[in-house]
Amino acid sequence: MDMQQEAVKDYGVRLGDDALILGHRLSEWCGKAPALEEDLALANTALDFIGRSRLFYSHAAELEGNRVSEDTYAYTRDCREFRNLLICELPCGDFAFTMARQYLVDEFYLAFMQGLTFSVEQTLAGVAAKAVKESRYHLRRSRQWMRVLGQGTDESHDRLQTAVNDLWGYTPEMFEPDELERKLVAAGVAVDTSGLKDDWMKAVNKTLAEASVQRPEGNWAVRGGRQGIHTEYLGHLLSELQFVQRAYPGLEW
Amino acid sequence: MDMQQEAVKDYGVRLGDDALILGHRLSEWCGKAPALEEDLALANTALDFIGRSRLFYSHAAELEGNRVSEDTYAYTRDCREFRNLLICELPCGDFAFTMARQYLVDEFYLAFMQGLTFSVEQTLAGVAAKAVKESRYHLRRSRQWMRVLGQGTDESHDRLQTAVNDLWGYTPEMFEPDELERKLVAAGVAVDTSGLKDDWMKAVNKTLAEASVQRPEGNWAVRGGRQGIHTEYLGHLLSELQFVQRAYPGLEW
Repeated sequence: MDMQQEAVKDYGVRLGDDALILGHRLSEWCGKAPALEEDLALANTALDFIGRSRLFYSHAAELEGNRVSEDTYAYTRDCREFRNLLICELPCGDFAFTMARQYLVDEFYLAFMQGLTFSVEQTLAGVAAKAVKESRYHLRRSRQWMRVLGQGTDESHDRLQTAVNDLWGYTPEMFEPDELERKLVAAGVAVDTSGLKDDWMKAVNKTLAEASVQRPEGNWAVRGGRQGIHTEYLGHLLSELQFVQRAYPGLEW
Repeated sequence: MDMQQEAVKDYGVRLGDDALILGHRLSEWCGKAPALEEDLALANTALDFIGRSRLFYSHAAELEGNRVSEDTYAYTRDCREFRNLLICELPCGDFAFTMARQYLVDEFYLAFMQGLTFSVEQTLAGVAAKAVKESRYHLRRSRQWMRVLGQGTDESHDRLQTAVNDLWGYTPEMFEPDELERKLVAAGVAVDTSGLKDDWMKAVNKTLAEASVQRPEGNWAVRGGRQGIHTEYLGHLLSELQFVQRAYPGLEW
């Protein structure tokens, strides 16, 4: 594996991490959502992200000559080795928090995956093409919930506002490519996320206005996920996610 | 190890399980209690129980010829191998739930440990003698909190009543010795918990009256912990408790 391949592998793993961790969070709603239809929709969205993680991880494993597998990445790495965006690992909170997070990342991932379809890495472009369709559907749902909650009762509006306030500082990290990504952007592999911010902000402004939610001032930002510096929540998430493979190493179904 | 020793070992492990699981639950309050003094008191109580588990487990490990250690019991067994009372594994809930559980088990453990000081097994009797002192202190605190919460605001009273209602069905299991315990009672090793119920009920009735809390009707009971049949909560607790040893087997500090 040359340096370029190594970088592509790392890039695939971080995209897999985003998808796995967010997918796991969404799966926590299974059986607990406020309505049956919503329960199914959240579980399906969770499966979309977990499926996405499998594709990204499998590609990375191939680049490692299949000395590892998708399960190696998912189940045998500890916190500091995960490279997901912090916004993906935050606890679900209430339904408003879950949907507000989903909306903010759906706007990001739709644009991101559209960009990734142009990657010179055929496999990444292929995964992205599938993901675009899913993200379009995810976004339609999460944006609709922003309106419903924002224009619903005082309670639902206030919870949505609180959620957006609490999430806001985790959004800048989405648009800050690090050295790895900048190199891969130059090589035509990666998406330049810094170029996605303006359109994302416009779309978000529009949706927040429709939801009668104030855009937070945005004078704080938390970052570190791409460098493996995580919130206190990721370890607890991993301890549940990884329990079976940790307790029964190599177990197959 | 003859059959009697095997039984004494199993008895020690289940007493260790009670203490470890309840201690872990209490430790979850660390840094989150409603007042600094209470935070310290809960953490100290947690340490008392975790310390108790070490003593019981170490004794069991000795009976196994030290082929295993206290850590083997704590960190490498899965749910179905744990034998703790279900009441110990229930999530902490709010402060009222935590203190109500604590009160109900403190009344039990004080009497239980007093009984165990008469065990013909010297080590168990010794552990019990230490535990009696701790339990007397635990009970003084938890009983005091029953009064404070019960006679406090409407909110604190209602939360305490709800907690007692939700806990009530988990109390019968404390007083139901199974075959293992009956044999060990006959051998002078174990405490006959069925004989502790009347005094426990009297003491609890008195405290509930002082707290202006209604005694629940008591027409439901959940059991199974002593046979390894647990609530959905134990697996999640173990996944956190065991993460480090599962991820880094044999790690020593």
